[in-house]
Amino acid sequence: MPNIVTISREFGSGGREVGKRLSDRLGYAYYDREILTALAAETGLRESYVSHRLESATFRNYSVHFARTFSQIPAIYNTTVQLLAVQYRIIKELASKEDCVIVGRAADVILAERNPFNIFVYADLASKLARCKSRAEEGESLSDKELIQKMKQIDKARAEQHNLVSSNAWGDKAGYHLCINTTGFEIKEIVPMLAEFCQKRFE
Amino acid sequence: MPNIVTISREFGSGGREVGKRLSDRLGYAYYDREILTALAAETGLRESYVSHRLESATFRNYSVHFARTFSQIPAIYNTTVQLLAVQYRIIKELASKEDCVIVGRAADVILAERNPFNIFVYADLASKLARCKSRAEEGESLSDKELIQKMKQIDKARAEQHNLVSSNAWGDKAGYHLCINTTGFEIKEIVPMLAEFCQKRFE
Repeated sequence: MPNIVTISREFGSGGREVGKRLSDRLGYAYYDREILTALAAETGLRESYVSHRLESATFRNYSVHFARTFSQIPAIYNTTVQLLAVQYRIIKELASKEDCVIVGRAADVILAERNPFNIFVYADLASKLARCKSRAEEGESLSDKELIQKMKQIDKARAEQHNLVSSNAWGDKAGYHLCINTTGFEIKEIVPMLAEFCQKRFE
Repeated sequence: MPNIVTISREFGSGGREVGKRLSDRLGYAYYDREILTALAAETGLRESYVSHRLESATFRNYSVHFARTFSQIPAIYNTTVQLLAVQYRIIKELASKEDCVIVGRAADVILAERNPFNIFVYADLASKLARCKSRAEEGESLSDKELIQKMKQIDKARAEQHNLVSSNAWGDKAGYHLCINTTGFEIKEIVPMLAEFCQKRFE
């Protein structure tokens, strides 16, 4: 069976870079936005629409709906729930093909029975702010207050999507094998150690 | 200034072994029960009494007392608060002398201005139970239920002692640089990676 590493991360903590560099180091496939692309292709929806639906939606009341038949779900929820169901299947399929690193999307929970190595990446607020600013696209200039607001919204959506399928809260260390605070580190410096943890785990 | 690594840990997770092996690997001094010994020597109290006072006491109501003069503290609290004050000074002194690994005793908070590398060691319940049983002394045979009760009591005392001086809750990953779940790992296998994290941090 393929080895699976999942990366969950706070917005701005460098989790995506950790995932990408770790997959390069391990020689594993890397899945992040690739999952959204597959989801858009499969459903015939635009990727930006799929992204909006899954990354900014409020999932709080969905767990109730999962237990019902789809016919009882109000139309506004329907698309998101169906997208989650297709995403669930796509993640299962990708992870059965080859060794991989999967970023976000509750893959740690969805693939729990496959015994993945689960990493949570976080950082101090000041460090996350600095990272967001350094990678902002030209012309984008959010104030600190706006950036903090954006961080909170995105992390909230991630937490809600995760908590929909998990008994451990998103970010609660009990659900992960390793939680790394990237504050004060260069990501490229810590990836070799993270890779060694993964390798020990899969020995 | 000396480099400082602090280890906080759930009872039964192997945190003490992590600390000892890490200090050997890094060539740092190691302080764990050594602090209790120094505390007993300095106060003239028996080490078992000091240990009992600090490791099984209930600290919940102490933060109030810290803000008052000692004369207002009921006698039963007095000894513990004074012990904490002496322990605080001993930890500061030890950490100013040489590179060291300090296990527990809220050293991560007490030494915060010295910018220590803070590790939290935890594990799944089944893994902690197995570790406790494997290291039980001859003749000691607690049931699972009794062991879980003991774990809870000790972790509660650790949390309360920590929370007395910290704005982050004990075990909340925000207060640590690295949180490692030892479930499924041999401690000796993961210490080299932890040592590398420390070295990168102190570069």
